[in-house]
Amino acid sequence: MKINTQNITRTEYLILRLISKSPRTYWEILLESFDTAANTISALKNLLNQNIISYQDKEFKLTENGKNFISQILKTEYVETKCPYCNGKGINPKSFNLENFSDIIKDRPKAIPEFDQGVVNIETVKNRISFMYYKGDIENKDIVLIGDDDLTSIALALTKLPNKITVLEADKRLVEYINDKARIFNLNNLQALIYNVECKVDNKLKNSFDVLLTDPVETVQGITLFLSRGCSMLKENGVAYFGLTHLEASYKKWFQIHKNLYQMNFVITDI
Amino acid sequence: MKINTQNITRTEYLILRLISKSPRTYWEILLESFDTAANTISALKNLLNQNIISYQDKEFKLTENGKNFISQILKTEYVETKCPYCNGKGINPKSFNLENFSDIIKDRPKAIPEFDQGVVNIETVKNRISFMYYKGDIENKDIVLIGDDDLTSIALALTKLPNKITVLEADKRLVEYINDKARIFNLNNLQALIYNVECKVDNKLKNSFDVLLTDPVETVQGITLFLSRGCSMLKENGVAYFGLTHLEASYKKWFQIHKNLYQMNFVITDI
Repeated sequence: MKINTQNITRTEYLILRLISKSPRTYWEILLESFDTAANTISALKNLLNQNIISYQDKEFKLTENGKNFISQILKTEYVETKCPYCNGKGINPKSFNLENFSDIIKDRPKAIPEFDQGVVNIETVKNRISFMYYKGDIENKDIVLIGDDDLTSIALALTKLPNKITVLEADKRLVEYINDKARIFNLNNLQALIYNVECKVDNKLKNSFDVLLTDPVETVQGITLFLSRGCSMLKENGVAYFGLTHLEASYKKWFQIHKNLYQMNFVITDI
Repeated sequence: MKINTQNITRTEYLILRLISKSPRTYWEILLESFDTAANTISALKNLLNQNIISYQDKEFKLTENGKNFISQILKTEYVETKCPYCNGKGINPKSFNLENFSDIIKDRPKAIPEFDQGVVNIETVKNRISFMYYKGDIENKDIVLIGDDDLTSIALALTKLPNKITVLEADKRLVEYINDKARIFNLNNLQALIYNVECKVDNKLKNSFDVLLTDPVETVQGITLFLSRGCSMLKENGVAYFGLTHLEASYKKWFQIHKNLYQMNFVITDI
């Protein structure tokens, strides 16, 4: 099949993004394609056939044609997010320059007071964004958030990478706050709407997002409700990120929640 | 309930191990207890009541009594495994000094040749051990391995931390090799037995291990077989670690495998 910027697959996107920075070996590509060896090889073959990439000295790199192609797909040069020290699951906390994020949200509506909440959350938001980027779930994506107490939507918008960010939030103050910030800082793709998770999702929002992000109430019912609402807004092969700690939910509860996830046809890929 | 070194719970063990190095706040303890806030608080209360720990200046620390108590439980001083740079999911690859591991296994029976296999595996083995230690699943544990192509059992034995390590391996050469090394290096708790995963597990091995480690064939049937065999050897609340990549198994396959895991009453806690 002829590839164009519209019908590029997720695996092709991840490969091209990776080698856009520097040539990579087959093994390096395989580790970052998040796909099977068979599918990765078939994507590489396809890209070779279309003269988008070339293979030399055991490395794949972009052709001139490929450089032009990738410039139409990427909004930013590829950012390395892996921790340079442990090279493991760790994410480099300095991947994205989001220094202005904490400034911008200084005047946020007061949250329910908790130990050190503000500080902790900003770091968590930054890590979460680096991780989502690493998995290929920010750039050019339509993202929906159910609840956004952490104001992750603003940080996402500041990266300038998503196509569209829609926040569904029950707290009217937060909705107005996010929309204000979007206007003031020209975050044109960011929009917040009032929505209570107990209500049905508007038909217009159904099947229209690539990525769901939510930090639900940590009960079996709460999480199941948030995810089933979110699920209905996702396109096929959509991706969901959600917060679940062992602080409030025991592994017994995890078990129940995960079991429900499998019933909704989700597969857990990262914890 | 009065705690002694025999009836200490997993959560109490993790708390004591953590503060054995230096005093910690409630929030630091909560993040590393891998248990709910309610259970963590109840464990802390219990330890305070027994005069094993004390609370001062917002930090918990061991009492003199507690220092004596913990010295009977820990085989080694607490080792920090978190990556010092990213402080995230990354594991410090230098947590354990296993430098002699690569020397010891230099004369290992030839594995099926693959790209750079030897080198990659040693790092993986080290990371895996640091991670298992972090989760509290090595020290004083009875560990069973189904298949041990990577010779992880020898590295585990070199830490001197487990109570017992039993390897069930189909390759006779590996079984003899592991037992030879155990004899030569005085790894008294390490033992390898010939076992083919297609056969039933010996009754003597049933319900007798805390931890299962396996790197199964990456098919739905393969993994289900390895894990159900392994499962029967675990005590209640036993823990299983297994290898599953996206290289050979698509997320569709993961979905099937995970679904089967939930049917065996496993909960996925880390990926």
